[in-house]
Amino acid sequence: MYTLSELQKCVANYMDNLDIDGSPHSLYEPISYSLSAGGKRLRPMLTVLACNIFSDNVLSALPAAAALEVFHTFTLLHDDVMDNATVRRGKPSVYGKWGTNAALLSGDAMMIYSYKLLQQTPVEYLPAVLGCFNYTAMTVCEGQQVDMEFESRNDVTMEEYMSMIDKKTAALLAGATMIGAIQGGADTLSRQHLFTFATELGLAFQLQDDLLDAYGTEEQLGKPIGGDILEGKKSFLMLTALDRADATVRKRLQALLGNKSLVAEEKVREVLEIYNSLCVSDIAEQEITSHFSKAMEALSNLEVDARRVEPLKELAQSLLGRNK
Amino acid sequence: MYTLSELQKCVANYMDNLDIDGSPHSLYEPISYSLSAGGKRLRPMLTVLACNIFSDNVLSALPAAAALEVFHTFTLLHDDVMDNATVRRGKPSVYGKWGTNAALLSGDAMMIYSYKLLQQTPVEYLPAVLGCFNYTAMTVCEGQQVDMEFESRNDVTMEEYMSMIDKKTAALLAGATMIGAIQGGADTLSRQHLFTFATELGLAFQLQDDLLDAYGTEEQLGKPIGGDILEGKKSFLMLTALDRADATVRKRLQALLGNKSLVAEEKVREVLEIYNSLCVSDIAEQEITSHFSKAMEALSNLEVDARRVEPLKELAQSLLGRNK
Repeated sequence: MYTLSELQKCVANYMDNLDIDGSPHSLYEPISYSLSAGGKRLRPMLTVLACNIFSDNVLSALPAAAALEVFHTFTLLHDDVMDNATVRRGKPSVYGKWGTNAALLSGDAMMIYSYKLLQQTPVEYLPAVLGCFNYTAMTVCEGQQVDMEFESRNDVTMEEYMSMIDKKTAALLAGATMIGAIQGGADTLSRQHLFTFATELGLAFQLQDDLLDAYGTEEQLGKPIGGDILEGKKSFLMLTALDRADATVRKRLQALLGNKSLVAEEKVREVLEIYNSLCVSDIAEQEITSHFSKAMEALSNLEVDARRVEPLKELAQSLLGRNK
Repeated sequence: MYTLSELQKCVANYMDNLDIDGSPHSLYEPISYSLSAGGKRLRPMLTVLACNIFSDNVLSALPAAAALEVFHTFTLLHDDVMDNATVRRGKPSVYGKWGTNAALLSGDAMMIYSYKLLQQTPVEYLPAVLGCFNYTAMTVCEGQQVDMEFESRNDVTMEEYMSMIDKKTAALLAGATMIGAIQGGADTLSRQHLFTFATELGLAFQLQDDLLDAYGTEEQLGKPIGGDILEGKKSFLMLTALDRADATVRKRLQALLGNKSLVAEEKVREVLEIYNSLCVSDIAEQEITSHFSKAMEALSNLEVDARRVEPLKELAQSLLGRNK
């Protein structure tokens, strides 16, 4: 069994030493560039931590773990084209640096590269791991499509929103965890508990992201506060505000969102005032806590030595800032 | 053993009955749309025909065969975005019909769908088939990247061009054939012969495509004649002409290519006149025949009952119009 920090080192070391090059170099350069941005490596960590609960043979899960990180980073390359986003984590995005065609084609190569990593999975687990990966990847695309369609809709319900983030964000965390569980040799019931854990964690994680976008610091975000507000995103905060507002305030909120002549800072400030008057951030906090508790409960239902679950629990707590 | 027409029916039937739908429907619709265009199904045919040489259990290769067709069609979706091409086989392309984001995201989903088909490969062949598929897919991306870079270059050599079409076109035919050979249980030497066969066939096929673009009929092409000339593509014909022309004619050819005010028909007519004066089409025909002969020779080197090779040979001959 490994500790959390041992596994973090393993994953970072594995990711930093991926052999990503070939001819023409121009195809591979955007791949190394986007992967070198680093980040928390959340998805591969979930894979190795889930594997670590059931088996000491965690290293053989590293290629599949890396495949999940590469796939996740690939989705960012294509999302940035679709969202016209030239900046990512405070640096130019691949789309911003090299343009549409490079983001498109190097993104494609990156998805194929994730399957090349997957192909190193021990053969006895390969069919199940490949099946889970494919299902997960398709679900993420479905979530992205629904999210894009929200942009042109004014009648998005909270239920639809939660279903969208379940597909776009939580499914990949769940897939990463399941792929680790499969390679650890987990039984069906344990897999079910871990699926619930990762899905609820993913929902809490996305809602926290929504919250940070309006109430975080520019340092935490790597970009200015209020991006979701300026893009008119149907976030948890916005849908909650629209739901709780009376007719007058709702009208004002919708007018603000559709107002393209307003200065950005002004727009963000006015929307935040409405959010505050409606206690939107408290409601978001409650929702995050609720999903996080469900995640922790699912973990505690695992019928294994509690010490083996500890590193995964630690990661989840630190991810949601609940590690004090 | 199956005949060519039996396998054509099998492949068409399998492709026509793929279950491509899910939620949201808008993600899947461009996938069905692009696959329903039909076409020769060349890549899946190569898979089942190669398998058919070594085994009577050809039906189990159908999912992987379909995966190759789906992957090929996915590349067209993304190529059309990169080339700004709104028409494909005489119909609006996905990019033309639904725009960049749909072509991008449904294209991604389509690539994932090809891996979902691949996952149905019998487990004893899965690692080798997945490895071959990944290698092939990455090579196709490399070829597309090189092709895009040719657009902004004026010093492309014939050697570079042949290497590009080897990656962009021939590699996928070779990969399709190898995946069939793997599933038929072919030995290493047979696989090598088949690799040579499919690569040479692919080169002949692409050169014939270059030739048809200038000397075919609009009916054969599904689009107007001279597209490559108008786009200033570094095709086999253009590179041959530039190579054979004297300094004066070369200058005139380059001036014609760079001339954006010339009417399209006029430009095509003048370039074709130069091609004709330099016997470019004869040289292309010779080159096609040379690659086709190498393909046929590789087939004849297979140490199997010649009758089992006949259906594959028949397809190759009909593809290059050498079936009289």
